[in-house]
Amino acid sequence: MELDRQFNGQGIDPRSGIPLYVQLKEILREQIRTGVWEPGDRIPSEAEIRQHFAVSRATVRQAITELEQEGLLVRQQGRGTFVRKPKIEWSLRNFYSFTRDLTERGLHPETRLLMFEVVLRKAIAREVFGLDEKEPLVKLVRLRLAAGEPLMLETTHLPECFVPGLTEEEVREHALYTLLEEKYGMRLERAMESFEPILVDEFASKMLEVPKGSPALYLERIGALADGRRVELSQTIVRGDRSRYLVELL
Amino acid sequence: MELDRQFNGQGIDPRSGIPLYVQLKEILREQIRTGVWEPGDRIPSEAEIRQHFAVSRATVRQAITELEQEGLLVRQQGRGTFVRKPKIEWSLRNFYSFTRDLTERGLHPETRLLMFEVVLRKAIAREVFGLDEKEPLVKLVRLRLAAGEPLMLETTHLPECFVPGLTEEEVREHALYTLLEEKYGMRLERAMESFEPILVDEFASKMLEVPKGSPALYLERIGALADGRRVELSQTIVRGDRSRYLVELL
Repeated sequence: MELDRQFNGQGIDPRSGIPLYVQLKEILREQIRTGVWEPGDRIPSEAEIRQHFAVSRATVRQAITELEQEGLLVRQQGRGTFVRKPKIEWSLRNFYSFTRDLTERGLHPETRLLMFEVVLRKAIAREVFGLDEKEPLVKLVRLRLAAGEPLMLETTHLPECFVPGLTEEEVREHALYTLLEEKYGMRLERAMESFEPILVDEFASKMLEVPKGSPALYLERIGALADGRRVELSQTIVRGDRSRYLVELL
Repeated sequence: MELDRQFNGQGIDPRSGIPLYVQLKEILREQIRTGVWEPGDRIPSEAEIRQHFAVSRATVRQAITELEQEGLLVRQQGRGTFVRKPKIEWSLRNFYSFTRDLTERGLHPETRLLMFEVVLRKAIAREVFGLDEKEPLVKLVRLRLAAGEPLMLETTHLPECFVPGLTEEEVREHALYTLLEEKYGMRLERAMESFEPILVDEFASKMLEVPKGSPALYLERIGALADGRRVELSQTIVRGDRSRYLVELL
Protein backbone atom coordinates (compact mmCIF):
# COMPACT_ATOMS: atom_id res chain seq x y z
CA MET A 1 0.00 0.00 0.00
CA GLU A 2 1.08 3.51 -0.85
CA LEU A 3 1.28 4.75 2.75
CA ASP A 4 3.34 1.78 3.85
CA ARG A 5 5.86 2.64 1.18
CA GLN A 6 5.96 6.30 2.20
CA PHE A 7 6.31 5.63 5.91
CA ASN A 8 8.52 2.66 5.23
CA GLY A 9 7.79 0.76 8.41
CA GLN A 10 8.25 3.67 10.81
CA GLY A 11 5.99 3.30 13.78
CA ILE A 12 4.71 4.86 16.95
CA ASP A 13 5.37 3.12 20.24
CA PRO A 14 2.48 3.67 22.68
CA ARG A 15 4.55 2.33 25.60
CA SER A 16 7.56 4.58 25.14
CA GLY A 17 6.44 7.30 27.54
CA ILE A 18 6.80 9.90 24.77
CA PRO A 19 3.37 11.33 23.82
CA LEU A 20 2.01 9.91 20.59
CA TYR A 21 1.68 13.28 18.90
CA VAL A 22 5.35 14.06 19.64
CA GLN A 23 6.39 10.75 18.08
CA LEU A 24 4.19 11.40 15.06
CA LYS A 25 5.56 14.93 14.68
CA GLU A 26 9.06 13.53 14.66
CA ILE A 27 8.16 11.02 11.95
CA LEU A 28 6.46 13.64 9.78
CA ARG A 29 9.38 16.01 10.26
CA GLU A 30 11.81 13.34 9.06
CA GLN A 31 9.71 12.73 5.95
CA ILE A 32 10.25 16.37 5.07
CA ARG A 33 13.86 16.80 6.15
CA THR A 34 15.04 13.72 4.36
CA GLY A 35 13.17 14.53 1.18
CA VAL A 36 10.67 11.65 1.18
CA TRP A 37 8.12 14.44 0.86
CA GLU A 38 9.21 17.39 -1.22
CA PRO A 39 8.16 21.04 -1.21
CA GLY A 40 4.75 21.37 -2.79
CA ASP A 41 3.82 17.72 -2.16
CA ARG A 42 0.46 17.04 -0.60
CA ILE A 43 0.95 14.81 2.41
CA PRO A 44 -1.49 12.00 3.23
CA SER A 45 -4.80 13.16 4.68
CA GLU A 46 -5.38 13.31 8.43
CA ALA A 47 -7.69 10.31 8.13
CA GLU A 48 -5.06 8.28 6.29
CA ILE A 49 -2.36 9.14 8.82
CA ARG A 50 -4.75 8.34 11.68
CA GLN A 51 -5.53 4.94 10.25
CA HIS A 52 -1.97 4.13 9.31
CA PHE A 53 -0.55 4.79 12.78
CA ALA A 54 -3.69 3.77 14.68
CA VAL A 55 -3.83 7.06 16.60
CA SER A 56 -6.64 9.49 17.36
CA ARG A 57 -7.78 12.42 15.28
CA ALA A 58 -6.55 14.77 18.04
CA THR A 59 -3.05 13.27 17.87
CA VAL A 60 -2.81 13.86 14.13
CA ARG A 61 -4.21 17.40 14.32
CA GLN A 62 -1.83 18.38 17.12
CA ALA A 63 1.22 17.10 15.22
CA ILE A 64 0.21 18.87 12.02
CA THR A 65 -0.72 22.11 13.79
CA GLU A 66 2.68 22.34 15.43
CA LEU A 67 4.54 21.56 12.23
CA GLU A 68 2.48 24.26 10.55
CA GLN A 69 3.52 26.78 13.25
CA GLU A 70 7.12 25.79 12.68
CA GLY A 71 6.77 26.54 8.99
CA LEU A 72 7.21 23.02 7.62
CA LEU A 73 3.62 22.34 6.54
CA VAL A 74 0.74 24.48 5.36
CA ARG A 75 -2.94 23.54 5.44
CA GLN A 76 -5.02 24.74 2.51
CA GLN A 77 -8.75 24.90 3.07
CA GLY A 78 -10.46 22.10 1.19
CA ARG A 79 -7.28 21.04 -0.60
CA GLY A 80 -5.21 19.30 2.04
CA THR A 81 -1.87 19.77 3.79
CA PHE A 82 1.24 20.58 1.81
CA VAL A 83 4.98 20.67 2.38
CA ARG A 84 6.13 24.27 2.36
CA LYS A 85 8.99 25.48 0.30
CA PRO A 86 12.24 25.07 2.23
CA LYS A 87 13.27 27.78 4.65
CA ILE A 88 15.92 30.24 3.53
CA GLU A 89 19.21 28.93 4.88
CA TRP A 90 21.86 31.29 6.21
CA SER A 91 25.32 29.91 6.55
CA LEU A 92 27.22 31.25 9.53
CA ARG A 93 30.51 30.33 7.93
CA ASN A 94 31.41 33.82 6.80
CA PHE A 95 30.32 37.42 7.09
CA TYR A 96 27.10 37.71 5.12
CA SER A 97 24.94 40.52 3.80
CA PHE A 98 21.17 40.27 3.39
CA THR A 99 21.09 42.04 0.05
CA ARG A 100 24.16 40.43 -1.46
CA ASP A 101 23.36 36.90 -0.31
CA LEU A 102 19.76 36.87 -1.44
CA THR A 103 20.65 38.50 -4.76
CA GLU A 104 23.18 35.75 -5.41
CA ARG A 105 20.49 33.16 -4.75
CA GLY A 106 17.95 34.84 -7.02
CA LEU A 107 15.60 35.56 -4.11
CA HIS A 108 15.03 39.24 -5.01
CA PRO A 109 15.76 41.02 -1.75
CA GLU A 110 13.85 44.19 -1.06
CA THR A 111 14.18 46.63 1.82
CA ARG A 112 11.51 49.07 2.98
CA LEU A 113 12.62 51.93 5.18
CA LEU A 114 10.07 52.43 7.96
CA MET A 115 11.95 54.98 10.03
CA PHE A 116 15.01 57.18 9.72
CA GLU A 117 15.99 59.46 12.57
CA VAL A 118 18.85 60.73 14.65
CA VAL A 119 18.57 59.73 18.28
CA LEU A 120 20.45 59.79 21.55
CA ARG A 121 20.87 56.25 22.88
CA LYS A 122 23.44 56.78 25.55
CA ALA A 123 23.89 53.19 26.68
CA ILE A 124 24.41 52.00 23.10
CA ALA A 125 26.81 54.83 22.24
CA ARG A 126 28.93 54.05 25.29
CA GLU A 127 28.75 50.27 25.59
CA VAL A 128 28.52 49.14 21.98
CA PHE A 129 30.51 51.81 20.16
CA GLY A 130 32.80 53.01 22.96
CA LEU A 131 31.85 56.61 22.23
CA ASP A 132 30.83 59.49 24.42
CA GLU A 133 27.22 58.95 25.38
CA LYS A 134 26.24 62.27 23.86
CA GLU A 135 27.21 61.08 20.38
CA PRO A 136 24.07 60.99 18.29
CA LEU A 137 23.18 57.79 16.47
CA VAL A 138 21.38 57.32 13.18
CA LYS A 139 18.50 54.92 13.74
CA LEU A 140 16.91 52.98 10.90
CA VAL A 141 13.98 50.62 11.07
CA ARG A 142 13.77 48.49 7.95
CA LEU A 143 11.54 45.71 6.75
CA ARG A 144 13.41 43.13 4.70
CA LEU A 145 11.62 41.03 2.10
CA ALA A 146 12.70 38.08 0.02
CA ALA A 147 10.83 37.20 -3.15
CA GLY A 148 8.03 39.55 -2.10
CA GLU A 149 7.56 38.00 1.34
CA PRO A 150 8.44 39.87 4.57
CA LEU A 151 11.26 38.08 6.34
CA MET A 152 12.93 40.35 8.90
CA LEU A 153 12.22 43.50 10.86
CA GLU A 154 15.51 45.22 11.55
CA THR A 155 16.44 48.12 13.81
CA THR A 156 19.91 49.52 13.12
CA HIS A 157 21.96 52.12 14.99
CA LEU A 158 25.07 53.71 13.50
CA PRO A 159 27.13 56.50 15.11
CA GLU A 160 26.31 59.64 13.15
CA CYS A 161 29.95 60.72 13.23
CA PHE A 162 30.78 57.72 10.98
CA VAL A 163 28.13 58.61 8.40
CA PRO A 164 27.96 62.43 8.30
CA GLY A 165 25.37 63.70 5.86
CA LEU A 166 23.68 60.34 5.37
CA THR A 167 20.18 61.05 4.09
CA GLU A 168 16.89 59.22 4.32
CA GLU A 169 16.76 59.29 0.52
CA GLU A 170 20.06 57.49 0.20
CA VAL A 171 19.06 54.76 2.67
CA ARG A 172 15.79 54.33 0.84
CA GLU A 173 17.53 53.91 -2.51
CA HIS A 174 20.64 51.88 -1.72
CA ALA A 175 21.74 48.89 0.31
CA LEU A 176 23.28 50.17 3.55
CA TYR A 177 26.53 48.22 3.16
CA THR A 178 26.94 49.55 -0.36
CA LEU A 179 26.43 53.12 0.90
CA LEU A 180 28.90 52.62 3.73
CA GLU A 181 31.47 51.36 1.28
CA GLU A 182 30.91 53.72 -1.63
CA LYS A 183 30.12 56.95 0.18
CA TYR A 184 32.19 56.50 3.34
CA GLY A 185 34.90 54.04 2.35
CA MET A 186 33.92 51.70 5.20
CA ARG A 187 33.78 48.03 4.29
CA LEU A 188 32.12 45.84 6.89
CA GLU A 189 33.92 42.54 7.08
CA ARG A 190 33.32 41.20 10.56
CA ALA A 191 30.36 40.68 12.81
CA MET A 192 29.51 39.32 16.23
CA GLU A 193 26.03 37.85 16.16
CA SER A 194 23.83 36.42 18.85
CA PHE A 195 20.73 34.27 18.43
CA GLU A 196 17.80 33.91 20.79
CA PRO A 197 14.28 32.64 20.16
CA ILE A 198 11.42 35.04 20.89
CA LEU A 199 7.71 35.32 20.16
CA VAL A 200 6.56 37.74 17.47
CA ASP A 201 5.09 40.83 19.16
CA GLU A 202 2.16 42.87 17.92
CA PHE A 203 4.14 45.31 15.84
CA ALA A 204 6.36 42.66 14.27
CA SER A 205 3.25 40.57 13.63
CA LYS A 206 1.78 43.31 11.44
CA MET A 207 5.02 43.97 9.63
CA LEU A 208 6.03 40.34 9.08
CA GLU A 209 2.47 39.19 8.33
CA VAL A 210 2.50 36.29 10.79
CA PRO A 211 0.28 35.80 13.85
CA LYS A 212 1.32 37.41 17.12
CA GLY A 213 3.09 34.80 19.25
CA SER A 214 4.65 33.00 16.27
CA PRO A 215 8.18 31.71 16.77
CA ALA A 216 10.94 34.09 15.69
CA LEU A 217 14.65 34.63 16.15
CA TYR A 218 16.03 37.72 17.82
CA LEU A 219 19.30 38.32 16.08
CA GLU A 220 21.73 40.94 17.27
CA ARG A 221 24.61 41.91 15.02
CA ILE A 222 27.54 44.18 15.79
CA GLY A 223 29.16 44.86 12.45
CA ALA A 224 32.77 46.02 12.26
CA LEU A 225 35.53 46.97 9.86
CA ALA A 226 38.53 44.71 9.24
CA ASP A 227 40.42 46.57 12.00
CA GLY A 228 37.65 45.76 14.50
CA ARG A 229 36.13 49.24 14.66
CA ARG A 230 32.41 48.85 15.31
CA VAL A 231 30.12 50.62 12.89
CA GLU A 232 26.69 49.03 13.23
CA LEU A 233 24.34 47.56 15.82
CA SER A 234 21.41 45.74 14.25
CA GLN A 235 18.64 44.07 16.20
CA THR A 236 16.50 41.92 13.98
CA ILE A 237 13.33 39.92 14.41
CA VAL A 238 13.53 37.05 11.91
CA ARG A 239 10.43 35.06 10.94
CA GLY A 240 10.97 31.56 12.23
CA ASP A 241 8.88 29.85 9.59
CA ARG A 242 11.09 31.10 6.77
CA SER A 243 14.67 31.04 8.07
CA ARG A 244 17.14 28.47 9.26
CA TYR A 245 20.72 29.18 10.33
CA LEU A 246 23.52 26.72 9.72
CA VAL A 247 26.93 26.52 11.29
CA GLU A 248 29.80 24.11 10.89
CA LEU A 249 31.77 23.49 14.06
CA LEU A 250 35.34 22.23 13.94
CA MET B 1 16.07 62.36 40.22
CA GLU B 2 17.06 58.72 40.42
CA LEU B 3 15.06 57.56 37.38
CA ASP B 4 16.44 60.34 35.20
CA ARG B 5 19.92 59.16 36.02
CA GLN B 6 19.05 55.53 35.24
CA PHE B 7 17.32 56.26 31.96
CA ASN B 8 19.80 58.98 31.18
CA GLY B 9 17.61 61.04 28.91
CA GLN B 10 16.32 58.19 26.75
CA GLY B 11 12.86 58.86 25.54
CA ILE B 12 9.86 57.54 23.72
CA ASP B 13 8.71 59.30 20.58
CA PRO B 14 4.92 59.15 20.20
CA ARG B 15 5.11 60.38 16.59
CA SER B 16 7.61 57.80 15.34
CA GLY B 17 5.04 55.30 14.09
CA ILE B 18 6.62 52.57 16.26
CA PRO B 19 4.20 51.48 19.00
CA LEU B 20 5.05 52.93 22.40
CA TYR B 21 5.41 49.55 24.09
CA VAL B 22 7.89 48.43 21.44
CA GLN B 23 9.97 51.55 22.02
CA LEU B 24 9.80 51.04 25.78
CA LYS B 25 10.79 47.38 25.43
CA GLU B 26 13.81 48.41 23.42
CA ILE B 27 14.86 50.91 26.10
CA LEU B 28 14.41 48.40 28.93
CA ARG B 29 16.30 45.76 26.95
CA GLU B 30 19.23 48.12 26.48
CA GLN B 31 19.35 48.84 30.21
CA ILE B 32 19.91 45.14 30.75
CA ARG B 33 22.20 44.39 27.83
CA THR B 34 24.51 47.27 28.55
CA GLY B 35 24.67 46.53 32.26
CA VAL B 36 22.94 49.67 33.56
CA TRP B 37 20.74 47.14 35.36
CA GLU B 38 22.49 44.03 36.53
CA PRO B 39 21.23 40.51 37.26
CA GLY B 40 19.30 40.48 40.50
CA ASP B 41 18.57 44.22 40.38
CA ARG B 42 15.01 45.29 40.97
CA ILE B 43 13.95 47.56 38.15
CA PRO B 44 11.77 50.64 38.76
CA SER B 45 8.11 49.88 39.46
CA GLU B 46 5.51 49.91 36.71
CA ALA B 47 4.11 53.13 38.16
CA GLU B 48 7.52 54.81 38.13
CA ILE B 49 8.19 53.75 34.56
CA ARG B 50 4.71 54.89 33.50
CA GLN B 51 5.24 58.33 35.03
CA HIS B 52 8.77 58.71 33.77
CA PHE B 53 7.91 58.02 30.13
CA ALA B 54 4.37 59.43 30.28
CA VAL B 55 2.83 56.25 28.91
CA SER B 56 -0.15 54.14 29.93
CA ARG B 57 -0.21 51.27 32.38
CA ALA B 58 -1.02 48.90 29.48
CA THR B 59 2.10 50.03 27.60
CA VAL B 60 4.35 49.29 30.57
CA ARG B 61 2.72 45.93 31.32
CA GLN B 62 2.99 44.81 27.71
CA ALA B 63 6.68 45.70 27.50
CA ILE B 64 7.48 43.93 30.79
CA THR B 65 5.38 40.86 29.94
CA GLU B 66 7.21 40.34 26.67
CA LEU B 67 10.63 40.81 28.24
CA GLU B 68 9.61 38.27 30.87
CA GLN B 69 8.65 35.77 28.13
CA GLU B 70 12.03 36.35 26.54
CA GLY B 71 13.75 35.53 29.80
CA LEU B 72 15.27 38.92 30.58
CA LEU B 73 13.00 39.95 33.47
CA VAL B 74 11.08 38.09 36.14
CA ARG B 75 8.12 39.42 38.11
CA GLN B 76 7.94 38.33 41.75
CA GLN B 77 4.56 38.59 43.39
CA GLY B 78 4.53 41.49 45.84
CA ARG B 79 8.26 42.15 45.48
CA GLY B 80 8.63 43.75 42.07
CA THR B 81 10.33 42.99 38.76
CA PHE B 82 13.92 41.79 38.66
CA VAL B 83 16.65 41.34 36.09
CA ARG B 84 17.21 37.63 35.58
CA LYS B 85 20.60 36.08 35.68
CA PRO B 86 22.20 36.19 32.25
CA LYS B 87 21.39 33.45 29.78
CA ILE B 88 23.92 30.70 29.29
CA GLU B 89 26.00 31.70 26.28
CA TRP B 90 27.17 29.12 23.77
CA SER B 91 29.97 30.14 21.48
CA LEU B 92 29.70 28.69 18.00
CA ARG B 93 33.39 29.24 17.43
CA ASN B 94 34.39 25.61 17.95
CA PHE B 95 32.94 22.18 18.46
CA TYR B 96 31.40 22.15 21.93
CA SER B 97 30.06 19.55 24.32
CA PHE B 98 27.24 20.18 26.77
CA THR B 99 28.87 18.32 29.64
CA ARG B 100 32.41 19.56 29.09
CA ASP B 101 31.47 23.18 28.48
CA LEU B 102 29.16 23.55 31.45
CA THR B 103 31.59 21.74 33.75
CA GLU B 104 34.33 24.18 32.75
CA ARG B 105 32.04 27.06 33.63
CA GLY B 106 31.04 25.60 36.98
CA LEU B 107 27.41 25.20 35.94
CA HIS B 108 27.05 21.58 37.13
CA PRO B 109 25.63 19.84 34.10
CA GLU B 110 23.35 16.89 34.71
CA THR B 111 21.73 14.54 32.23
CA ARG B 112 18.65 12.42 32.85
CA LEU B 113 17.99 9.55 30.51
CA LEU B 114 14.28 9.43 29.66
CA MET B 115 14.36 6.74 26.99
CA PHE B 116 16.81 4.23 25.58
CA GLU B 117 15.77 1.96 22.76
CA VAL B 118 16.80 0.47 19.47
CA VAL B 119 14.63 1.61 16.59
CA LEU B 120 14.31 1.48 12.84
CA ARG B 121 14.28 4.99 11.38
CA LYS B 122 14.85 4.28 7.75
CA ALA B 123 14.97 7.83 6.45
CA ILE B 124 17.53 8.85 9.07
CA ALA B 125 19.68 5.75 8.52
CA ARG B 126 19.79 6.42 4.79
CA GLU B 127 19.86 10.20 4.51
CA VAL B 128 21.83 11.20 7.59
CA PHE B 129 24.20 8.28 8.06
CA GLY B 130 24.38 6.95 4.50
CA LEU B 131 23.62 3.45 5.75
CA ASP B 132 21.25 0.77 4.60
CA GLU B 133 17.80 1.72 5.80
CA LYS B 134 17.49 -1.54 7.72
CA GLU B 135 20.38 -0.56 10.02
CA PRO B 136 18.98 -0.22 13.53
CA LEU B 137 19.63 3.00 15.43
CA VAL B 138 20.06 3.53 19.14
CA LYS B 139 17.64 6.24 20.21
CA LEU B 140 18.16 8.24 23.40
CA VAL B 141 15.92 10.91 24.83
CA ARG B 142 17.73 12.93 27.45
CA LEU B 143 16.88 15.89 29.61
CA ARG B 144 19.83 18.20 30.17
CA LEU B 145 20.05 20.39 33.25
CA ALA B 146 22.44 23.14 34.24
CA ALA B 147 22.79 24.12 37.89
CA GLY B 148 19.66 22.13 38.69
CA GLU B 149 17.50 23.81 36.05
CA PRO B 150 16.18 21.96 32.97
CA LEU B 151 17.69 23.49 29.85
CA MET B 152 17.37 21.15 26.88
CA LEU B 153 15.37 18.15 25.76
CA GLU B 154 17.47 16.12 23.40
CA THR B 155 16.66 13.20 21.11
CA THR B 156 19.72 11.43 19.76
CA HIS B 157 20.07 8.70 17.15
CA LEU B 158 23.29 6.72 16.67
CA PRO B 159 23.77 3.79 14.28
CA GLU B 160 23.87 0.70 16.46
CA CYS B 161 26.68 -0.75 14.39
CA PHE B 162 28.95 2.07 15.68
CA VAL B 163 28.14 1.37 19.32
CA PRO B 164 27.66 -2.39 19.64
CA GLY B 165 26.77 -3.46 23.15
CA LEU B 166 26.02 0.06 24.38
CA THR B 167 23.80 -0.34 27.44
CA GLU B 168 21.16 1.84 29.04
CA GLU B 169 23.19 1.67 32.26
CA GLU B 170 26.29 3.11 30.61
CA VAL B 171 24.36 5.98 29.04
CA ARG B 172 22.75 6.69 32.36
CA GLU B 173 26.10 6.83 34.14
CA HIS B 174 28.44 8.53 31.67
CA ALA B 175 28.51 11.45 29.28
CA LEU B 176 27.81 10.13 25.78
CA TYR B 177 30.89 11.71 24.20
CA THR B 178 33.09 10.22 26.93
CA LEU B 179 31.58 6.79 26.28
CA LEU B 180 32.06 7.11 22.55
CA GLU B 181 35.68 8.00 23.08
CA GLU B 182 36.61 5.61 25.86
CA LYS B 183 34.58 2.56 24.95
CA TYR B 184 34.54 2.89 21.15
CA GLY B 185 37.58 5.02 20.38
CA MET B 186 35.43 7.53 18.48
CA ARG B 187 36.22 11.14 19.18
CA LEU B 188 33.62 13.59 17.89
CA GLU B 189 35.35 16.68 16.61
CA ARG B 190 33.04 18.19 14.04
CA ALA B 191 29.41 19.10 13.84
CA MET B 192 26.92 20.65 11.46
CA GLU B 193 24.29 22.47 13.45
CA SER B 194 21.11 24.22 12.40
CA PHE B 195 19.04 26.66 14.42
CA GLU B 196 15.36 27.41 14.10
CA PRO B 197 12.97 29.02 16.56
CA ILE B 198 9.95 26.97 17.64
CA LEU B 199 7.29 27.05 20.34
CA VAL B 200 7.61 24.69 23.30
CA ASP B 201 5.13 21.81 22.85
CA GLU B 202 3.21 20.06 25.58
CA PHE B 203 5.75 17.35 26.27
CA ALA B 204 8.74 19.70 26.22
CA SER B 205 6.76 22.09 28.43
CA LYS B 206 6.49 19.46 31.16
CA MET B 207 10.10 18.41 30.87
CA LEU B 208 11.61 21.89 30.61
CA GLU B 209 9.25 23.39 33.19
CA VAL B 210 8.18 26.34 31.06
CA PRO B 211 4.70 27.16 29.76
CA LYS B 212 3.54 25.55 26.54
CA GLY B 213 4.07 28.03 23.69
CA SER B 214 7.22 29.55 25.21
CA PRO B 215 9.97 30.48 22.77
CA ALA B 216 12.59 27.79 22.19
CA LEU B 217 15.30 26.89 19.73
CA TYR B 218 15.16 23.73 17.69
CA LEU B 219 18.76 22.73 17.28
CA GLU B 220 19.80 19.90 15.03
CA ARG B 221 23.33 18.55 15.29
CA ILE B 222 25.04 16.02 13.07
CA GLY B 223 28.19 15.07 14.94
CA ALA B 224 31.12 13.51 13.11
CA LEU B 225 34.64 12.21 13.56
CA ALA B 226 37.67 14.12 12.30
CA ASP B 227 37.48 12.16 9.03
CA GLY B 228 33.89 13.34 8.50
CA ARG B 229 32.18 10.04 9.33
CA ARG B 230 28.80 10.84 10.88
CA VAL B 231 28.10 9.26 14.24
CA GLU B 232 25.28 11.20 15.84
CA LEU B 233 22.06 12.99 14.98
CA SER B 234 20.73 15.07 17.87
CA GLN B 235 17.53 17.08 17.76
CA THR B 236 17.26 19.37 20.72
CA ILE B 237 14.64 21.71 22.09
CA VAL B 238 16.51 24.46 23.95
CA ARG B 239 14.73 26.73 26.43
CA GLY B 240 14.82 30.20 24.95
CA ASP B 241 14.78 32.04 28.24
CA ARG B 242 18.06 30.45 29.37
CA SER B 243 20.25 30.18 26.28
CA ARG B 244 21.88 32.50 23.81
CA TYR B 245 24.13 31.46 20.93
CA LEU B 246 27.03 33.58 19.78
CA VAL B 247 28.98 33.50 16.57
CA GLU B 248 31.80 35.57 15.18
CA LEU B 249 31.70 36.07 11.43
CA LEU B 250 34.83 36.93 9.50
